Amino acid sequence: MQVMQAPHAILLLSCPDKRGIVASVSRFIYQNGGNIVHAEQYTDTSQNRFFMRIEWDLKNFQLKRDKIAQAFIPIAKEFKMEWRLHFNDHIPNVAVFVSKTSHCLYELLLRQRSGELMGNIKLIISNHSNLRYIAENFGIPFYVLAVTPETKIKVEEKELRLLQEHEIELVILARYMQILTPNFVNHYPNRIINIHHSFLPAFAGPHPYHQAKERGVKVIGATSHYVTPELDAGPIIEQDVIRVSHRDSIENLIQKGRDIEKLVLARAVKMHLENRIIVYENRTIVFDT
Amino acid sequence: MQVMQAPHAILLLSCPDKRGIVASVSRFIYQNGGNIVHAEQYTDTSQNRFFMRIEWDLKNFQLKRDKIAQAFIPIAKEFKMEWRLHFNDHIPNVAVFVSKTSHCLYELLLRQRSGELMGNIKLIISNHSNLRYIAENFGIPFYVLAVTPETKIKVEEKELRLLQEHEIELVILARYMQILTPNFVNHYPNRIINIHHSFLPAFAGPHPYHQAKERGVKVIGATSHYVTPELDAGPIIEQDVIRVSHRDSIENLIQKGRDIEKLVLARAVKMHLENRIIVYENRTIVFDT
Amino acid sequence: MQVMQAPHAILLLSCPDKRGIVASVSRFIYQNGGNIVHAEQYTDTSQNRFFMRIEWDLKNFQLKRDKIAQAFIPIAKEFKMEWRLHFNDHIPNVAVFVSKTSHCLYELLLRQRSGELMGNIKLIISNHSNLRYIAENFGIPFYVLAVTPETKIKVEEKELRLLQEHEIELVILARYMQILTPNFVNHYPNRIINIHHSFLPAFAGPHPYHQAKERGVKVIGATSHYVTPELDAGPIIEQDVIRVSHRDSIENLIQKGRDIEKLVLARAVKMHLENRIIVYENRTIVFDT
Amino acid sequence: MQVMQAPHAILLLSCPDKRGIVASVSRFIYQNGGNIVHAEQYTDTSQNRFFMRIEWDLKNFQLKRDKIAQAFIPIAKEFKMEWRLHFNDHIPNVAVFVSKTSHCLYELLLRQRSGELMGNIKLIISNHSNLRYIAENFGIPFYVLAVTPETKIKVEEKELRLLQEHEIELVILARYMQILTPNFVNHYPNRIINIHHSFLPAFAGPHPYHQAKERGVKVIGATSHYVTPELDAGPIIEQDVIRVSHRDSIENLIQKGRDIEKLVLARAVKMHLENRIIVYENRTIVFDT
Repeated sequence: MQVMQAPHAILLLSCPDKRGIVASVSRFIYQNGGNIVHAEQYTDTSQNRFFMRIEWDLKNFQLKRDKIAQAFIPIAKEFKMEWRLHFNDHIPNVAVFVSKTSHCLYELLLRQRSGELMGNIKLIISNHSNLRYIAENFGIPFYVLAVTPETKIKVEEKELRLLQEHEIELVILARYMQILTPNFVNHYPNRIINIHHSFLPAFAGPHPYHQAKERGVKVIGATSHYVTPELDAGPIIEQDVIRVSHRDSIENLIQKGRDIEKLVLARAVKMHLENRIIVYENRTIVFDT
Repeated sequence: MQVMQAPHAILLLSCPDKRGIVASVSRFIYQNGGNIVHAEQYTDTSQNRFFMRIEWDLKNFQLKRDKIAQAFIPIAKEFKMEWRLHFNDHIPNVAVFVSKTSHCLYELLLRQRSGELMGNIKLIISNHSNLRYIAENFGIPFYVLAVTPETKIKVEEKELRLLQEHEIELVILARYMQILTPNFVNHYPNRIINIHHSFLPAFAGPHPYHQAKERGVKVIGATSHYVTPELDAGPIIEQDVIRVSHRDSIENLIQKGRDIEKLVLARAVKMHLENRIIVYENRTIVFDT
Repeated sequence: MQVMQAPHAILLLSCPDKRGIVASVSRFIYQNGGNIVHAEQYTDTSQNRFFMRIEWDLKNFQLKRDKIAQAFIPIAKEFKMEWRLHFNDHIPNVAVFVSKTSHCLYELLLRQRSGELMGNIKLIISNHSNLRYIAENFGIPFYVLAVTPETKIKVEEKELRLLQEHEIELVILARYMQILTPNFVNHYPNRIINIHHSFLPAFAGPHPYHQAKERGVKVIGATSHYVTPELDAGPIIEQDVIRVSHRDSIENLIQKGRDIEKLVLARAVKMHLENRIIVYENRTIVFDT
Repeated sequence: MQVMQAPHAILLLSCPDKRGIVASVSRFIYQNGGNIVHAEQYTDTSQNRFFMRIEWDLKNFQLKRDKIAQAFIPIAKEFKMEWRLHFNDHIPNVAVFVSKTSHCLYELLLRQRSGELMGNIKLIISNHSNLRYIAENFGIPFYVLAVTPETKIKVEEKELRLLQEHEIELVILARYMQILTPNFVNHYPNRIINIHHSFLPAFAGPHPYHQAKERGVKVIGATSHYVTPELDAGPIIEQDVIRVSHRDSIENLIQKGRDIEKLVLARAVKMHLENRIIVYENRTIVFDT
């Protein structure tokens, strides 16, 4: 949908707050001939920490791409920055893990195809074969890797090999229903996105809709977060909710829940793929405008 | 704002589901000359339990008010109903408990004055004197009853006496910040409404905004519930949420939270005063349309 | 997803308000052995008109299906009712009209397949061939019938013939982008559902997102309505909105708009297929709980 | 609620987009010893126009306040900027115009008192005396200036004199219900904020709730905008909506409408008072995060 113009560079950084950060970074871009097309900053005053996302047009930029990082190092050192440099024409490879329900998978595939999600979905991994037909319709390799407590370590090794072969940069758990081991998680820090079918931290665990019904809540939610070794406790990227009432049966809650799960997951993935997220102390700064 | 027309009777009932309930109840009303102006039912199929709220015009009703309940008993017995009968021109007496923050108190007073909340706010009780000026502006008696761990029992006795003297039928905790004893709570079963400044069951306890900030949630909420002896665990009447981001400081969260707290509390109180709520097994059925 | 239990009958009726309607209808059901599983009523006091939807279990109902309407006629006459009788195991045939954009079509197909929309999508008609691959994936006949001002009458005749051949009971315009003639519309009164990509009545016409951008609105919407001969003026079934800001380009508005268009359309179609809608004086009564 | 720290300067600017703007502005601040605490920019690519809001701490800033503008002029000229400079410890004087309904007035007064709205409400003007008691409770001068078609010019002259005497910088029409003449409006360009009780541009004019009921919409809205000589057509600052249904009577729509009117107005006023709004070609850029 979006016409691809000249490529952009995107710099994400955080550092102790101090005078002169914006001036230094913007001068660096200006002196090399870049035009800033988007910049946003945030200062966490309670931690005295500065965060920034700055995006500029490379059209007349005088540094070649592979020289930019090198040239930026002195500024980064001066301000003790943690930083990442991205280019918006790099489309990352993505793997999607699913189980039996299709709504999140479809949402990702359709938004990817319509140009909203700028990632290459290279493979789909599942512990069941139910959704193979969708993968086939979209022409994407589908791997069934059944997991049991006994085989989990072996299966994860296979999965990791597949991810490496396909040069995967982002793993999306689209209602995968399996808990990954810390070993697996640690291979992709802040690069595994999960959708949890509740408003975390309420109703963590595998049956949130039953708990919601039991407790009689009037609103249910969904939470998309980066996966960390601690279950359901990783940095939250996006959340949303929908109203329910006593009339909603468990089946209705599940049905209504699907609508927000897929939306929340899609938004979180979009933010990640557009390099809008910095994780700091188990929280996200999402530069979402 | 609402023009008072002929009075209505409101019957709230629940019973095991069975054929003929609606036919029996509606015949009872029809044969006595009543015109049903609103009726809503709900069947919890998982529990095989039927719930109903039915409201009828008393204009040409041939039973006097004080005879209706008596006349209804045979039907209630036949279907093993739990039931309550109300009249919409009975305006209950209400007590509001507050502490130092005024937003919920103002919301109740302004909505009461504009005719949205059909209750008589007879007295305001606080453990601090900060909000006395508001009570005075609105011409409502204001009692300061400071609570300490040592005096709590004594103070609650005084409070109960005040409530009895004023024939209070509903107690609203409008950010009261004190935990009531089970003894107090048991005097007003399903007649004490609290506003909790989080989306329960997430962030129960006294500092939800700090917990929300710490956990990095993207949505905060408020919950209005009936008070039961178990803290923050009573039947939920109403909930709502508002979006937040990493940019929101604790102060901002509190400020945004105020906007939903007062709305959620006002809606819950309105539902109660209009006799729209049945509590069953620690959950509410709210006939809210 | 929903387990099919014993079939239900659904009666939708409206009539001048009067004492005894509920009693008569519920007695009719009770005396014939039916158990009411859902009932909702609404009285438009400004018009003195009563509306009702009542649903009962046919398990032990002593009238055969094809005798129910006959048996109900005396009550309908007595109260001067307009009424319709449906059975929830009758799954209507549906035709979907599309143009080039796929999001609404996919939404309908996926929700139909997941059991949320109880209709048989028998054919898809388009003035372009772009979406043929989707129809093929889902195994649904796809007809390309290109429309020009000169051919419109002829094409509509063909379309009407196709609809009759497939015994279509509901036509869904899923971003069809063509204006139907009054002749076509009059063949399916209150049985053609359109999705308009704005919050009607604001921004009627073909380019609402450009108008929204021009006017600088902070919220955009979508409206699903029954089609009447007057363009964009039929009874509104469902509407919803999403926040936007100055940052949203036309492309972004279109992208955000897609998310609500498909949701709003799907909800409207669901309400129709579940026989929850009465149209009265160009407005809908939607018994949506 | 907010602890006042060292004062901040706020620069709002727009200019043709060009390389070097951010670098020049941030260098200006850095070289004079300022620490940027908030900066946000936006480029309207369709118009090739750049917009920015930048806020910095004056603690160690080496230019005196009254010299900053002077020192900035060369940069402003170089980039052909339209710009304004504000200081966050300047609390503007505000006048509120009301008629008979109190909900918007109360909302402003309560939020002002709680520290959310940083303005001095110096006087309240009304064409009726109904709300005098509120003004008295809050200790604010209240002027009744009845308006008739014949007296409008004279009355507006009096009003303008009052505004000048009180050095009013912002006029808020809190459901004032009178149309101001272009002459009046032109005295306060982009400094008169109105709340319109509909989702503009739908239902412009004086009776939006009746129109909404008539049209059967499922969502109603409120719009806060700057007043321009053309009625209801000024730049929109904020909008929001609330769901309604066929069940809502006109009275209910009015009641529900009040809840969003007051919220939408309060948010718009807050954005204005915090100097977050640039108006450009009858649209607002609101730097609201």
